[in-house]
Amino acid sequence: MNFHLEEAVEILERTPETLNALLSGLSPGWLESNEGEGTWNPSQVIGHLIEGEKNDWIPRLEMILREGETRPFPPFDRFAHLNESPERTAEEKLAEFKTLRQQSLDKLKTLVDSDTNLEQTGLHPDFGPVKLRELLSTWVVHDFTHITQITRTMAERYRDDVGPWKAYLGVLKKK
Amino acid sequence: MNFHLEEAVEILERTPETLNALLSGLSPGWLESNEGEGTWNPSQVIGHLIEGEKNDWIPRLEMILREGETRPFPPFDRFAHLNESPERTAEEKLAEFKTLRQQSLDKLKTLVDSDTNLEQTGLHPDFGPVKLRELLSTWVVHDFTHITQITRTMAERYRDDVGPWKAYLGVLKKK
Repeated sequence: MNFHLEEAVEILERTPETLNALLSGLSPGWLESNEGEGTWNPSQVIGHLIEGEKNDWIPRLEMILREGETRPFPPFDRFAHLNESPERTAEEKLAEFKTLRQQSLDKLKTLVDSDTNLEQTGLHPDFGPVKLRELLSTWVVHDFTHITQITRTMAERYRDDVGPWKAYLGVLKKK
Repeated sequence: MNFHLEEAVEILERTPETLNALLSGLSPGWLESNEGEGTWNPSQVIGHLIEGEKNDWIPRLEMILREGETRPFPPFDRFAHLNESPERTAEEKLAEFKTLRQQSLDKLKTLVDSDTNLEQTGLHPDFGPVKLRELLSTWVVHDFTHITQITRTMAERYRDDVGPWKAYLGVLKKK
């Protein structure tokens, strides 16, 4: 096991700035690119990360601390962000994500003591008992998943443009 | 084909800041993590990107403009950065990459006219004739490849820590 709370926070607190550096001010061609039917564009991915801050990570953490395994977490709707109407700009979503993530991290620091709380458990609707440190590790890897998804999606846009170099470009082989 | 010079530059000019936001100040546990024997840690990936600025992208672009298909590009050593001794800190490498990338983009603006030069060709040692716009597209996708590699590598560090959530995390399924 590699999890340490301070190192997990290092990643969680950097993600808004990473996404901002990567995406802020980009042309629609990049922000609206996707990997095909049913896949998300970079702007939609930020919408999904916003949903996570509102309805997944801290709410589940609070349930673990308050209720333990007495009842399962409410399911998280992984498609809720697709119903937004009218859809906000990527810029607006980046700003909201940054604010929400900061609030989440403030709560995390108040709520969790790494000496006493990390082994506490809650009830996942599919998996059964899960530990608080597994939830926090998942939050970190979830950030990495979606940064990866964004860069993979934007790379896909140039799949044909790179010509013969496709053979050398790992990111285009992952389908 | 999706390539437009201005949009390609949008990505190339953002990469140093993206890497800085993602990596600057991280603990050694993250910067030195890798995906197993023979794979690169995030700090080594920056070293590879530095080599590209020095010996790959602009030098090949200049060869296309100056020499066309008269002789092949010198091969690019994809492992040169592993010979650095003593290895610099990630912080030093991030700063050097930022400087070199800015210089590369300044040269790109001076050298390439998107109305006249994009279809010019050079000779790749493995692929044969390649177009300038394919080289530039590859430069962009190469950035995405290595941002993806870094986030995938850091995610790998928590592969066991996430417990049952592994089933939901795309970035951990890519091996």
